[in-house]
Amino acid sequence: MTDEVRLSLDEVHALTFAIFTNHGVSDAQAQALADVIYAAERDNCKSHGLFRVPGYMASVKSGKMNKAAEPELSELAPGVLRIDAQNGFAPLALQTGRAPLIARAREQGIAALAIVNSLHFQAVWYEVEALASEGLVALACVTAASYVAPAGGIKPLYGTNPMAFGWPRPGRPPLVFDQAASASARGEIMLHERDGHSIPEGWALDAEGNPTTDPTEALAGAQLPFGGYKGAAIALMVELMAGAMIGDVFSFEVSARDNRDGGPMARGEVMIAIDPARCLSSGNRDAQLAHGERLFEQILAQEGTRLPSDRRYAARLETPTSGIVIPRSLHDTLMELRG
Amino acid sequence: MTDEVRLSLDEVHALTFAIFTNHGVSDAQAQALADVIYAAERDNCKSHGLFRVPGYMASVKSGKMNKAAEPELSELAPGVLRIDAQNGFAPLALQTGRAPLIARAREQGIAALAIVNSLHFQAVWYEVEALASEGLVALACVTAASYVAPAGGIKPLYGTNPMAFGWPRPGRPPLVFDQAASASARGEIMLHERDGHSIPEGWALDAEGNPTTDPTEALAGAQLPFGGYKGAAIALMVELMAGAMIGDVFSFEVSARDNRDGGPMARGEVMIAIDPARCLSSGNRDAQLAHGERLFEQILAQEGTRLPSDRRYAARLETPTSGIVIPRSLHDTLMELRG
Repeated sequence: MTDEVRLSLDEVHALTFAIFTNHGVSDAQAQALADVIYAAERDNCKSHGLFRVPGYMASVKSGKMNKAAEPELSELAPGVLRIDAQNGFAPLALQTGRAPLIARAREQGIAALAIVNSLHFQAVWYEVEALASEGLVALACVTAASYVAPAGGIKPLYGTNPMAFGWPRPGRPPLVFDQAASASARGEIMLHERDGHSIPEGWALDAEGNPTTDPTEALAGAQLPFGGYKGAAIALMVELMAGAMIGDVFSFEVSARDNRDGGPMARGEVMIAIDPARCLSSGNRDAQLAHGERLFEQILAQEGTRLPSDRRYAARLETPTSGIVIPRSLHDTLMELRG
Repeated sequence: MTDEVRLSLDEVHALTFAIFTNHGVSDAQAQALADVIYAAERDNCKSHGLFRVPGYMASVKSGKMNKAAEPELSELAPGVLRIDAQNGFAPLALQTGRAPLIARAREQGIAALAIVNSLHFQAVWYEVEALASEGLVALACVTAASYVAPAGGIKPLYGTNPMAFGWPRPGRPPLVFDQAASASARGEIMLHERDGHSIPEGWALDAEGNPTTDPTEALAGAQLPFGGYKGAAIALMVELMAGAMIGDVFSFEVSARDNRDGGPMARGEVMIAIDPARCLSSGNRDAQLAHGERLFEQILAQEGTRLPSDRRYAARLETPTSGIVIPRSLHDTLMELRG
């Protein structure tokens, strides 16, 4: 018996769906969530795949997730749509908003989607890719919980606050990046702790505000933003846009009401979608996308470079036939959750 | 005779206006430019004050600036406006687009302004502050010339590509940040070279791709993005949005057609303005801004922190009475340019 279990992508989807529906989560919520977990495993984005299922389930079990939540769409302005996720998981809320946001971006040239009261625990690239695959330029950001010190400070305040961006490419998946405003993912520090490794300098401060390479001290202290005060400014921007701008909470407010069940808390996300062809006087979309490709050629002409998301797209070619592997311990947990 | 000259802010404005109009630049172009130089000196933002005038003048003298350029406004979509700067300087183009962009953001909730064919050499905070002072959330970015290596690469490709963000505050100037995607401003490296100082590690590579602390080698090599591959991703996003998205050039294309006169080249800038009150179901703007203030209180409650732009606002309280100082050598140059 190896310490790993191999699953097909269909099994990933079916297992996820079964776990949640067996606990009374609506088919619609479970289906949208299974789509996201499936996509993460397909792309070898392990940090947001089946690994997250126990966390999602914690929010179901503790009752903070609304199992039957039906996201409510409303129009706030010609260019601004709002989804109230009703304390359901983010995937169904995002799925509900996707087509209306795309339509609005094409009509108005630019449009925003405010998602509020959403239990957000997923990779942001997923939704940005969906928009960019429809020919749109997309930008999204989401708050988290109090983990990251502000510039000059030593105590956690900002979330890891990922921001993702997508650009459409002709005849291939879009260029997408998705990056935390922190120097490292929080999960990376946890993995170092689990494995008994020290963390690189520049990731975190201990509880007294001293630089630390000890993952346990780091988790009790504050994470650092990437790139010093400039990364902190990005984190601050995300707080304002995905918090006060859309009438949702800041990361420190998420932490203040956290029930410590380990699962996602309700928070806000904002997406901006732009139809790039509507930003041209010529309207020549083909020439525009070809122009983008010339930049990518210049990047790739330099040795040692790659485009963001290329590793995910490479994995995507393999996993439909190879399947994916997860630790047996995780598989055991999932089997138990499925019941 | 000291090596510095003190000027009142009115003198800064009048001198700038005189220099450009004496060389045949239209009153409208010179006025908008003098407003921007005035604001930079007022805020002790020396890198974008009178120091830039010789550079602007280089573009006038070499003929690449259109002295009589009248920016042309057009509507590309309900949420997208375009200004063709007609190879004039950016300030008049931005000023021309400001009121229409504000009106459109209030009407649509979100709107974008694409500025093309603009000789851009100014601080991006200026325009973002103008929008945020009207109660809008504003985001702007602009390309530059080939200075910064892509992630994993060693040759210049991206511009320093500043991105600026503004958030309105009740009863006081907005929160604004404006930061290059490079680890340092290019001008900082030049100042180190002039003063015979070495530069910090992490700013640049030499022409062979080795890390360097020699400013001369750095200027012949490539600047590094801030925060590694994440800063590079921001630079890439700015290239795409202020380049291909609005039908203008990439930084490497700016460099390819540079006439090496030292002055600004034509390029693109994109601004996004959002009416935050239109992003709320309640529409309660006062409560929304008060919410933002609670985040700023949390930041400032930590010792050692400050808000972006606070240094500029502090200077702004001093300079109307103290005036500003510039090196005598710069003053001599400006007197000569004025004729």
